[in-house]
Amino acid sequence: MKPAEIAAILYDLGAIKFGDFTLSSGKHSPYYVDMRSVLGSPAPFRQVIGSLLDLAEEKIGLDSFDSIASVPTGGLVFASALAYESVKPLAYVRSSAKDHGTQRAVEGAASTGQRVLVVDDVATTGASVVHAVDALQKAGARVADALVVIDRLEGAAESLEKLGVRLCSVATIAELGTELHKQEKIDDATISAIRARTGTA
Amino acid sequence: MKPAEIAAILYDLGAIKFGDFTLSSGKHSPYYVDMRSVLGSPAPFRQVIGSLLDLAEEKIGLDSFDSIASVPTGGLVFASALAYESVKPLAYVRSSAKDHGTQRAVEGAASTGQRVLVVDDVATTGASVVHAVDALQKAGARVADALVVIDRLEGAAESLEKLGVRLCSVATIAELGTELHKQEKIDDATISAIRARTGTA
Repeated sequence: MKPAEIAAILYDLGAIKFGDFTLSSGKHSPYYVDMRSVLGSPAPFRQVIGSLLDLAEEKIGLDSFDSIASVPTGGLVFASALAYESVKPLAYVRSSAKDHGTQRAVEGAASTGQRVLVVDDVATTGASVVHAVDALQKAGARVADALVVIDRLEGAAESLEKLGVRLCSVATIAELGTELHKQEKIDDATISAIRARTGTA
Repeated sequence: MKPAEIAAILYDLGAIKFGDFTLSSGKHSPYYVDMRSVLGSPAPFRQVIGSLLDLAEEKIGLDSFDSIASVPTGGLVFASALAYESVKPLAYVRSSAKDHGTQRAVEGAASTGQRVLVVDDVATTGASVVHAVDALQKAGARVADALVVIDRLEGAAESLEKLGVRLCSVATIAELGTELHKQEKIDDATISAIRARTGTA
């Protein structure tokens, strides 16, 4: 699916919103991303999964990873459907030590030497994806690529690069903003705010 | 898929084991069920999803529910693939109040008046499924059916019946035991122990 289409779909669903949002950190952001609204709409959900699969084929190569892993809850919903569609084994990494107690940090297909593709819905600073990569590497798996639907361009790619992992996204928030600006769904001030925040031209 | 096939698949994967298991309650059980091992094997995972879909078609009717809901983490992985395959909206219920804080108890497609099918991997006493039904009903959704892969026959059907919800399973632990006994994968003493525990003839 082209960036113009995915931008329109996510905007129409309310999965991406533009305005003045106060984050939990107290900081303000000119955009808001919530991929949970995609789950409630089967056709867009399938289109997003299709885009992830296309990207995995074109940019990563379906033969270059043995299994797909994610972190509960949001990302795992997308990873599960992607694993189903691509006929790849699935694993998941528990979100934190307190959530697993005596349970394993990694469940499913991520044994020693396996090449694992990490999938998540949204990358912000990358904390969630970095946690997954770290747990998978400790379990002996090899991670070369991470795949997300939206990259908010807030440091995830840089944090992953330090772990030797490349981040691929269906679209960055800057690309989505540019498409929606072209489609006259957001105004000049909004696209300027997005570009200022993400450091994109 | 026939009970004989699903039994063989789950047994070969180690998703069901027979012996003497000590549960977290301290009680002993002659069987152990862990559907997470299915995630790591794409063909069996697809077969299980296919069985859930067949059951939803035959016993419940695909037109009799508007969306599919589950509870993280185990059940949601199956629900996500089932929603993807059946092109139904997906919702999930957070496992407990402490896990959601200021977040909503129900995320996704479960608004007032929607008819929701609750899906989980395993039903034991039914606590997890009952929690989901309760949260969905509080959100205004209608729940008539719950669908699980394995019913351990430990009270889930009775608890759900009190809420007006019918429980369907791909197989009960007693059915799986009977099939595996026929296939000579478990001995006479084991099938007797399963029947004694589940109160089945």
